[in-house]
Amino acid sequence: MYETRLHKLQQLTGAAGLDAVVLVPGSHLIYLTGASFHLMERPVLCIVPAHGTVTFIMPEMEAGKVQGRTLFPLQVFTYNDTTGHEGAMAEGLKTAGLDGQRVGVEGLRMRFAEAQLLARYAPDARIVDAGEALAVLRIHKDSAEVAALRDAIAISQDALAKVTAGVQAGMSEKDIANALLIDMLQRGGGELPFEPLVQTGPNSALPHGGPSDRVLNEGEILLIDFGTSAGGYVSDITRTFVLGELTNQRLIDAYAAVKGANEAGRKAAGPGVPCQEVDRAARGVIEKAGFGEYFIHRTGHGLGMEAHEGPYMREGNTQLLEPGHVFTVEPGIYLPGVGGIRIEDDVLVTADGAESLTTYPRELTSLGG
Amino acid sequence: MYETRLHKLQQLTGAAGLDAVVLVPGSHLIYLTGASFHLMERPVLCIVPAHGTVTFIMPEMEAGKVQGRTLFPLQVFTYNDTTGHEGAMAEGLKTAGLDGQRVGVEGLRMRFAEAQLLARYAPDARIVDAGEALAVLRIHKDSAEVAALRDAIAISQDALAKVTAGVQAGMSEKDIANALLIDMLQRGGGELPFEPLVQTGPNSALPHGGPSDRVLNEGEILLIDFGTSAGGYVSDITRTFVLGELTNQRLIDAYAAVKGANEAGRKAAGPGVPCQEVDRAARGVIEKAGFGEYFIHRTGHGLGMEAHEGPYMREGNTQLLEPGHVFTVEPGIYLPGVGGIRIEDDVLVTADGAESLTTYPRELTSLGG
Repeated sequence: MYETRLHKLQQLTGAAGLDAVVLVPGSHLIYLTGASFHLMERPVLCIVPAHGTVTFIMPEMEAGKVQGRTLFPLQVFTYNDTTGHEGAMAEGLKTAGLDGQRVGVEGLRMRFAEAQLLARYAPDARIVDAGEALAVLRIHKDSAEVAALRDAIAISQDALAKVTAGVQAGMSEKDIANALLIDMLQRGGGELPFEPLVQTGPNSALPHGGPSDRVLNEGEILLIDFGTSAGGYVSDITRTFVLGELTNQRLIDAYAAVKGANEAGRKAAGPGVPCQEVDRAARGVIEKAGFGEYFIHRTGHGLGMEAHEGPYMREGNTQLLEPGHVFTVEPGIYLPGVGGIRIEDDVLVTADGAESLTTYPRELTSLGG
Repeated sequence: MYETRLHKLQQLTGAAGLDAVVLVPGSHLIYLTGASFHLMERPVLCIVPAHGTVTFIMPEMEAGKVQGRTLFPLQVFTYNDTTGHEGAMAEGLKTAGLDGQRVGVEGLRMRFAEAQLLARYAPDARIVDAGEALAVLRIHKDSAEVAALRDAIAISQDALAKVTAGVQAGMSEKDIANALLIDMLQRGGGELPFEPLVQTGPNSALPHGGPSDRVLNEGEILLIDFGTSAGGYVSDITRTFVLGELTNQRLIDAYAAVKGANEAGRKAAGPGVPCQEVDRAARGVIEKAGFGEYFIHRTGHGLGMEAHEGPYMREGNTQLLEPGHVFTVEPGIYLPGVGGIRIEDDVLVTADGAESLTTYPRELTSLGG
């Protein structure tokens, strides 16, 4: 499997006009090796040429993650805390032979420190951000990957049903987030893609606010955006509830608009459809309802080993959807000081349309009854 | 409080010979603003000049995290998913006026993508890695910070006692890790500094291996390295147990050596002591016991908002310890194919010595009795 993935990476490296790519710890490197490394103060570089042998430069104490395993031909240069990494970097990068080459890196993952190591020990390489080209490596999910996504989604949905059934006035955002986390772990959920967002009342109007000590009151919005992982693949789902009855007419109208937008976005998806059409379909419903200015983010992002990856559902992205793409459809309306509504599903492009992997009810649900 | 922290940052910026620093989402930015931002595909830059007004460039939907709050004088440039970030970056960086300036960045945090934005929109700035200079910003923990560290440690230690009391043959590494995570959440533990390492038998010889499906057998080593957080500050503790009785004489000897090394490292710490002396004290005990070649990492790292920060206890680091520094002492011996031993404490430098904030027993404990 890993040899096949390496060949895929080498092919797209060549197709992108690159002589090599340099990976750092993250999802691509896990995908390529099945091993997790640490992106901390001890640098790890994996140099993959379009043709030839893979070079690893890494701490001695992590070398067992690649050495002695059946992966693909590779050479490993190690260092330890006493020697420091300079020698291994100099020797490893010299051996990798990047001089005069065009070398792609993960722009949203490689750090300034690693980029400086490349500048120092491979000074004649031309380093470019190959993030978009590399995104293709993992953009088509095979059946095993989709199965893992379904597992993560099932855990999330079951936890959401269980926890929201117990929500009462006076519970804080943190209480509810905590209950979700415990319930997901009890169901076998793995490493979190991100900390749950649990937002009550006017807090829900902040699309990226974390859980606070604010307590939920009768009649208020409860917005929950969260996920878990299974087999290394993540879920990402948002539902918006009300404790008791929603009486604010603008929020009632906003809910209806978001629900319609979510449905329109999902229905627009399918093979051959440009990503921006999914955004336009969802946005159109919200604009028609008069809330356009309050939908202040794109409609969705790809989902897989990471919670945010390609393809992105936004205006201007003409990339065509293909079977195996998985992404979120998550329109939202945020009324400052009043409240926010978001409904987010995880959608798989199929041979003839799209399937929402998330199936949690989308009707406005009254809690605490 | 945030104004005081800003002045501290501005002072050390000037003292490091820098005209400005550019922060990205992470612990420094949380420390400076009390707000969490996302280090994802939407760039956030915070430009702090040695003298003058702070500039933020960030997504519109996160702007509420700094705008309208009482922080310090600041100017904010925002963008959204439709406009894209280019305009805000160009205008914000022009306004910040970095031309011809020496600008420090967080080398282990800022990514290639943000560095490219600086190169494009502040092409005449001279960008340098100021990671070490910036580490000083948070290196002295005040009493509130130490109290938070103690809270995180108490949660971890209580969870460790509870979970290890229930360990039995046949439990997998993942089972034990899961039980720890649930127990810590139930005690109010916050966001994880890192996923727990739970290693059984020969797996414990890999200093950085994750929990697997391997089950614990009678007579085997169980190594647990984990932490939690409280109020944004993290714990990091390692203890090594045995299920039943340890009969391998080399592991028995290794345990004694590591225990002695941990004690020697803690005793060596105090104000005015060079960091490398803590490493030497611990390493000396292990070398004398004949295990020197199997202690393949430094003795410790600083601890605070992050699990790995300055000061680092390693050979070659002549930085002097000062009251308020907090760091780990974690010697280890790893016998390939046999097993590993590590004992890790979190140590606070005091006015006249050092106090171990972690107090969990260090004697070899037999589980499953």
